[in-house]
Amino acid sequence: MGKAHSMAYATMPMFFWPAPARPVKKLIVDVTDELAHTAAERYAWESHTTNWEAAINDPEIDLIDIATPNNMHAEIAIAAAEAGKHVICEKPLAPTAKEAREMLEAVEKAGVVNAVAFNYRRTPAVALAKRYIDEGAIGEILNFRGTYLQDWSADPDSPLSWRFQKKIAGSGAVGDIGSHVVDLARYLVGEIEEVTSVVSNFIKDRPLQTSGFDALGAGEAGRGPRGAVDVDDEAMTLLRFRDGAVGSMEATRNAWGRNNFITFEIHGTEGSLYFNYEKRDELQVAFKNEPADRRGFRTVYTGPNTPYGEALWPIPALGIGYGETKIIEAYELMRAITGEAPIRPDFSDGYQTALVDEAILASGASGQWQNVPLYERQNLT
Amino acid sequence: MGKAHSMAYATMPMFFWPAPARPVKKLIVDVTDELAHTAAERYAWESHTTNWEAAINDPEIDLIDIATPNNMHAEIAIAAAEAGKHVICEKPLAPTAKEAREMLEAVEKAGVVNAVAFNYRRTPAVALAKRYIDEGAIGEILNFRGTYLQDWSADPDSPLSWRFQKKIAGSGAVGDIGSHVVDLARYLVGEIEEVTSVVSNFIKDRPLQTSGFDALGAGEAGRGPRGAVDVDDEAMTLLRFRDGAVGSMEATRNAWGRNNFITFEIHGTEGSLYFNYEKRDELQVAFKNEPADRRGFRTVYTGPNTPYGEALWPIPALGIGYGETKIIEAYELMRAITGEAPIRPDFSDGYQTALVDEAILASGASGQWQNVPLYERQNLT
Amino acid sequence: MGKAHSMAYATMPMFFWPAPARPVKKLIVDVTDELAHTAAERYAWESHTTNWEAAINDPEIDLIDIATPNNMHAEIAIAAAEAGKHVICEKPLAPTAKEAREMLEAVEKAGVVNAVAFNYRRTPAVALAKRYIDEGAIGEILNFRGTYLQDWSADPDSPLSWRFQKKIAGSGAVGDIGSHVVDLARYLVGEIEEVTSVVSNFIKDRPLQTSGFDALGAGEAGRGPRGAVDVDDEAMTLLRFRDGAVGSMEATRNAWGRNNFITFEIHGTEGSLYFNYEKRDELQVAFKNEPADRRGFRTVYTGPNTPYGEALWPIPALGIGYGETKIIEAYELMRAITGEAPIRPDFSDGYQTALVDEAILASGASGQWQNVPLYERQNLT
Amino acid sequence: MGKAHSMAYATMPMFFWPAPARPVKKLIVDVTDELAHTAAERYAWESHTTNWEAAINDPEIDLIDIATPNNMHAEIAIAAAEAGKHVICEKPLAPTAKEAREMLEAVEKAGVVNAVAFNYRRTPAVALAKRYIDEGAIGEILNFRGTYLQDWSADPDSPLSWRFQKKIAGSGAVGDIGSHVVDLARYLVGEIEEVTSVVSNFIKDRPLQTSGFDALGAGEAGRGPRGAVDVDDEAMTLLRFRDGAVGSMEATRNAWGRNNFITFEIHGTEGSLYFNYEKRDELQVAFKNEPADRRGFRTVYTGPNTPYGEALWPIPALGIGYGETKIIEAYELMRAITGEAPIRPDFSDGYQTALVDEAILASGASGQWQNVPLYERQNLT
Repeated sequence: MGKAHSMAYATMPMFFWPAPARPVKKLIVDVTDELAHTAAERYAWESHTTNWEAAINDPEIDLIDIATPNNMHAEIAIAAAEAGKHVICEKPLAPTAKEAREMLEAVEKAGVVNAVAFNYRRTPAVALAKRYIDEGAIGEILNFRGTYLQDWSADPDSPLSWRFQKKIAGSGAVGDIGSHVVDLARYLVGEIEEVTSVVSNFIKDRPLQTSGFDALGAGEAGRGPRGAVDVDDEAMTLLRFRDGAVGSMEATRNAWGRNNFITFEIHGTEGSLYFNYEKRDELQVAFKNEPADRRGFRTVYTGPNTPYGEALWPIPALGIGYGETKIIEAYELMRAITGEAPIRPDFSDGYQTALVDEAILASGASGQWQNVPLYERQNLT
Repeated sequence: MGKAHSMAYATMPMFFWPAPARPVKKLIVDVTDELAHTAAERYAWESHTTNWEAAINDPEIDLIDIATPNNMHAEIAIAAAEAGKHVICEKPLAPTAKEAREMLEAVEKAGVVNAVAFNYRRTPAVALAKRYIDEGAIGEILNFRGTYLQDWSADPDSPLSWRFQKKIAGSGAVGDIGSHVVDLARYLVGEIEEVTSVVSNFIKDRPLQTSGFDALGAGEAGRGPRGAVDVDDEAMTLLRFRDGAVGSMEATRNAWGRNNFITFEIHGTEGSLYFNYEKRDELQVAFKNEPADRRGFRTVYTGPNTPYGEALWPIPALGIGYGETKIIEAYELMRAITGEAPIRPDFSDGYQTALVDEAILASGASGQWQNVPLYERQNLT
Repeated sequence: MGKAHSMAYATMPMFFWPAPARPVKKLIVDVTDELAHTAAERYAWESHTTNWEAAINDPEIDLIDIATPNNMHAEIAIAAAEAGKHVICEKPLAPTAKEAREMLEAVEKAGVVNAVAFNYRRTPAVALAKRYIDEGAIGEILNFRGTYLQDWSADPDSPLSWRFQKKIAGSGAVGDIGSHVVDLARYLVGEIEEVTSVVSNFIKDRPLQTSGFDALGAGEAGRGPRGAVDVDDEAMTLLRFRDGAVGSMEATRNAWGRNNFITFEIHGTEGSLYFNYEKRDELQVAFKNEPADRRGFRTVYTGPNTPYGEALWPIPALGIGYGETKIIEAYELMRAITGEAPIRPDFSDGYQTALVDEAILASGASGQWQNVPLYERQNLT
Repeated sequence: MGKAHSMAYATMPMFFWPAPARPVKKLIVDVTDELAHTAAERYAWESHTTNWEAAINDPEIDLIDIATPNNMHAEIAIAAAEAGKHVICEKPLAPTAKEAREMLEAVEKAGVVNAVAFNYRRTPAVALAKRYIDEGAIGEILNFRGTYLQDWSADPDSPLSWRFQKKIAGSGAVGDIGSHVVDLARYLVGEIEEVTSVVSNFIKDRPLQTSGFDALGAGEAGRGPRGAVDVDDEAMTLLRFRDGAVGSMEATRNAWGRNNFITFEIHGTEGSLYFNYEKRDELQVAFKNEPADRRGFRTVYTGPNTPYGEALWPIPALGIGYGETKIIEAYELMRAITGEAPIRPDFSDGYQTALVDEAILASGASGQWQNVPLYERQNLT
């Protein structure tokens, strides 16, 4: 994440010009001096430290960017807000909805810009889906089906990173990847009113991780001592939206052959949408109002004529990668800080998503439909 | 369906040779004399009638093939069984599980061959998936995700066929298309223990149908008087299998751009499978045990080296259509009648699927997980 | 081929009703009495023989259907024509253009219905492409790119069937599979004026075939004595059409992973078309005249609203297989015999395609562009 | 291109760490002071000028990066080499092979690092294809089929940029996009010995461009005065490689619905490869040596376990965009400058590709096969 955010701050003005602001990478924080030093050098930050409070206390710093494990989010974000800093925080906003709520209250009280890094809604094809929906092109939405399928930890011998430990991560597949789908569902369809879920943990233990690094898929399978996994690795849920649509969401870490398989299919009264992040330059759309012998899903490649396109690459299918989603995120963040436009998803969204996540987990435990409380945003924009 | 079954009986021995038996198309029944006459001529039956009991009473007839609307299935099937005829019945077996049970009891009592026409499990690519699973190639199954998405009735102005009337059809999307996915889930994964569901009816009324013909997607949109739709057009359900796997199923008639979109994705501990009937010559499979730089879903085209392949076309991707699924069904049925091998799915499967369907509908009404009773088959094979 | 044609004659009236005629399968001919007997039984023919002249001389027979190896086509077809029989002949029409010309002259002189079995243009998606082109939907055609890629004989140890022997087959990939692409190019774009080609034979010898059966991909690799392959297994050609369009065609038997990969892509001034027979229910089309944020290839599934759809299956993506292309062919043939409509491709098309094939082979040998003579059809329809 | 190269220099060390060198963006040159000033600010260069010779003469500058229209390449590159600067030049290396030769001679004489920016071979999936080939995984290569299809200028009313003017660009589709495919063919298969081609220019004139900006697809269609297009917009060619393989290449600007459709399919004796840049995270590969019921194209997503993966994103299908191809290019360039490893493609490759391009154009004019002279590299690496 250090790589992704640093790259985004460095290059955002090259894409979005004139840029709303040019970020200056002042101070990077890591857990050891060596890591911090290396990170500063590698990612071109002016200075480095192991003491995150130094960033909070530095009057030259306007923005705190939190990319720690989840259990550190609240303390840092609240301190940052209290110091009047703007804050962007990686997702999920916090291990629990309670902490997310405290973070939200802190930033609202402080009146600082706040954002949560659900970057997949920045994908131009997702923004195009949103445009179609807002234009009414697919009519009233009836159904949403979202998935996030991965296999980087499908091997039971892949290491027990912090992502598999409840005290650090809060939850497993639900918070780590399911929350992205919940964010997409809320962005594209609306608020979720209730859920019923199956939450599973198929891989019960994993080899203890010997390095501090969160190895994801590149790690070698381990044969050493093993520790318990106390979070879910798979969740399936049905959704009822407040406006009457229904839906489903599945997040799993056990899907051999799926890498970053974030998909949604949306059926409306006037058409359907399909998106698969693994082919992220494409949005598929089918319209009801076509001649019967010409009706079908069309594949639109995002580019100069679709959202953010004027800033990115000049021909469709030159193509974007993960980095561009972070560059767009940095752009939206700078627009918010300079007052050009408010940013979403903000901490209220992060909190609302945490409420959905908790309802999914609660339903998995109770076997009952769980209502999702609705947080009423203070300053609607 | 008359077309499909007649074609299958006529051509099965051309594909499967030596054929277990050569069906003789003795007597076709339809609701009017004109329809029956035309059908006999068109589909090459020896004679025709409007009186289905004539078929039951004809000593030259060994097999009764039921392709009526759902509400006629039980009466005919039970009479056939009592007359000692073998029976194949279109799906769903009956509008209610109760009727399905009565049909099952009748055929078990009579000891006749009985089959229910869930033809999609006959698709060679589905049979190949079954082979992989039985060989352990994808390990222990963790997750099943199935869909059946259509749009032929997504237009609220398409006609109110019998498929939208509870007294004839029993249910809507659940029985008509969801039952196929339930059949695939049971075939590939195993028995379903409980379900929790959202069952919807988005299109509340439709134009009255002016002809007796079940027009499906080819019908013109109507502007005349409308009648109420009293069945579901969309169902989403979570599944718990008895052996510990979990899953989901969605069936909808409101999916613009989807035609006969029967899909499943199965994740196992050693690999994954994906199938989409719209590209029915293909099965996709990913294996865990591949070198990391060569791992991914591969697309296998069915052909001479996959199930039923020696009988069908001599090169993969010459390709099969809907007809071949019915030809294979006819082959399996003749094998059962001649005693070569028992046929599945039989009425016990049709009944068990009806129990799952009723649990889905009940859960949609109650908002609770619903247990699915398990019928213990009498003669396991 | 016996299977495909027999199935088509038996079932055509079930699909196309009222049928232009009901074929009666009178007499089947094969090389041994046993084969002929079995074929008659399996494919439900009234009688059988090993003497093809018996069919020619039988006054009850109206139509001769030739599915022999290529070197027998001319003798049989000419005798049939002289006897006043209608003739349909498998492709390529003959091993050489000279023989094809003689066949053409015979049927023209006799005034009998004549057809050549380029069945892939019967695929509904191909007929839909033709409809789009005729409607001007993609404008003036600039470019055609066609392929036919297979791998059933990519293994050098697959048997030396007659398809690899020049004296029987005439040519290899050019006549056997390239001719289908030439037929599609002529059907969709127009006459080809000249070609320049690379023609290769990568696999120089193969194991002698021990059975008379043309095993295609199902055969076991052989280890016995080998014989020389004296035909091409791969051809690539550039095309200049008479109306100004350009194009290319590739046919190869050495494409591991490709099964029956018949594709074309056509670029016009107003849009593009893409077809792949391996996904034969789909036609992809992109139109210029779409809003820039909604432009892209759409996938249209053929069904009731596309060519031949009213006769086939009632929902798109129920789907057709190889058989349906032959059923449509039989339908068109019966229409021609009953005088409803002339049939194309006829022997003049088979001859013209043979001229293109010979030019491809000649160019491969000479390294020069080769002009393709244009046969002027006698009775334009 | 300024954006792409600047982004690559800024972020390469963030990805590749420890970086071989950290580029310092010293001086940017543009045609007007305002453009240069803005570019320097936007892309974070230390200073700017309109006089490119200032860069050549600056002793602090080690590397000259040429991203001008083609007709300026030679003068700048030769001056840079003579001044002892390393040089990277956008493709094609020059409008003519003659100029490319002069550039090559200059860099060889000067002994400076030299590179040509055929970035598509930097795509990790292309590098993976190269790895498979080098490992012998697909055996001896028989056939290469490459395409580069676009539609950003398919509209005859899109502006007459310098890319359509022979005196600036040298050629049209051949040099601009075909050269990328030639580079891929040479990289993956080997040297091309001779070609025969059809070269077309379908769009004869275009509206004069009113701004200096090379608008590509984002430009509005023009209605003003028009100027002649004197370069090709489409080329199709057959290829003979020196090692016996054959192939084809098509480049067109008239392919509605295709955006940056760079594809290749390679058939070898042991398998096949398929790549499509529009889905650039994927490489498809089929191996002969699979069980017959499990053989087929598999889709491998590039990531940590494939070339350059350790430096890019930690999970396959997080995904790369156009930018990453340029970041990898910058990495390889810095490795060459620091002496870690030589870089390819260099000017000898650029020259050899120009020879192929000229042969394609010559064959299009002559209608004859054209031999491609082979340049013998001085310092093989």
